[in-house]
Amino acid sequence: MIDFDKAGGLVPAIAQDADSGEVLMLAWMNREAFDETVRTGRAVYFSRSRNRLWRKGEESGNVQVVKGMFVDCDADTVLLKVTQVGGAACHEGFPTCFFRELAGGELKVVGERVFDPKQVYKK
Amino acid sequence: MIDFDKAGGLVPAIAQDADSGEVLMLAWMNREAFDETVRTGRAVYFSRSRNRLWRKGEESGNVQVVKGMFVDCDADTVLLKVTQVGGAACHEGFPTCFFRELAGGELKVVGERVFDPKQVYKK
Repeated sequence: MIDFDKAGGLVPAIAQDADSGEVLMLAWMNREAFDETVRTGRAVYFSRSRNRLWRKGEESGNVQVVKGMFVDCDADTVLLKVTQVGGAACHEGFPTCFFRELAGGELKVVGERVFDPKQVYKK
Repeated sequence: MIDFDKAGGLVPAIAQDADSGEVLMLAWMNREAFDETVRTGRAVYFSRSRNRLWRKGEESGNVQVVKGMFVDCDADTVLLKVTQVGGAACHEGFPTCFFRELAGGELKVVGERVFDPKQVYKK
C-alpha cells in the first residue's frame, strides 16, 4: 500500500485540518507508525530526532484525530485529514507549523499563537 | 532561510491549491529549485528519479503559479500555495496526487480524472 522500502523506511506524512483545509505540519512515518495510525485513528509519526515512534500529542495532549487517510500516486506520501485537539499543531504554539511566509526575501510570522509553549511543555 | 544541509540537500515541498485549499502533491526542492521558484513565481522542484530540476508543467504545460510560500517551524519543509494551470497537478490526470483514500483496509479512487495522461504525455 505504501512503498516504505523505496523511501528508505520513512515516508512524508502531511497533516491537514479536516475542516478548514489548513496544512498543519509535515512529519514522517515508518510502517509501524502508519499501521498504528490506521489502527487507532490517532496520528502517529516517527520522530527522526528522537529515533522512535511519536504519538502526536503524547506530551501536550494535542492529539490529532484522523478523519481520512490518502495516499499519493507514487505511494510514497501520506495525507492525513485530522481534527487537531487544542487548536494548535505546532510545538511553538501556532495552529500550523507553516506560520512564516516568505515575502520580499524575508520570513514574516503570519500566524497567531494559540498557546504559550512554556506552559504546555514543562520540561 | 531553509536548512538544506540538515536535510541532505533536499527538502519536501507541499503544493496546495491557493483557492480550494486542496493538497495537490508533495515533491522535493534543492536550493536551486527553491531559488528559481522564488525568482520566477513558478513551482520548480528537484526530480529525484531524473536527478535534475523539474519545472512543473514543462512537458504538460500544467505549470503552478505560486501565490504564496511558507516555511515550517524547523525550516525544513516548504508549503506553496499555487494556482494549478490545467486543473490537474497529477501526471495521472487527477486534480490532486492524493486521489486514493484508505478505507476498510483498501485504497479507493475518490478523485475524478481531468485529463487522459495518454493525450498529454506523448512519449
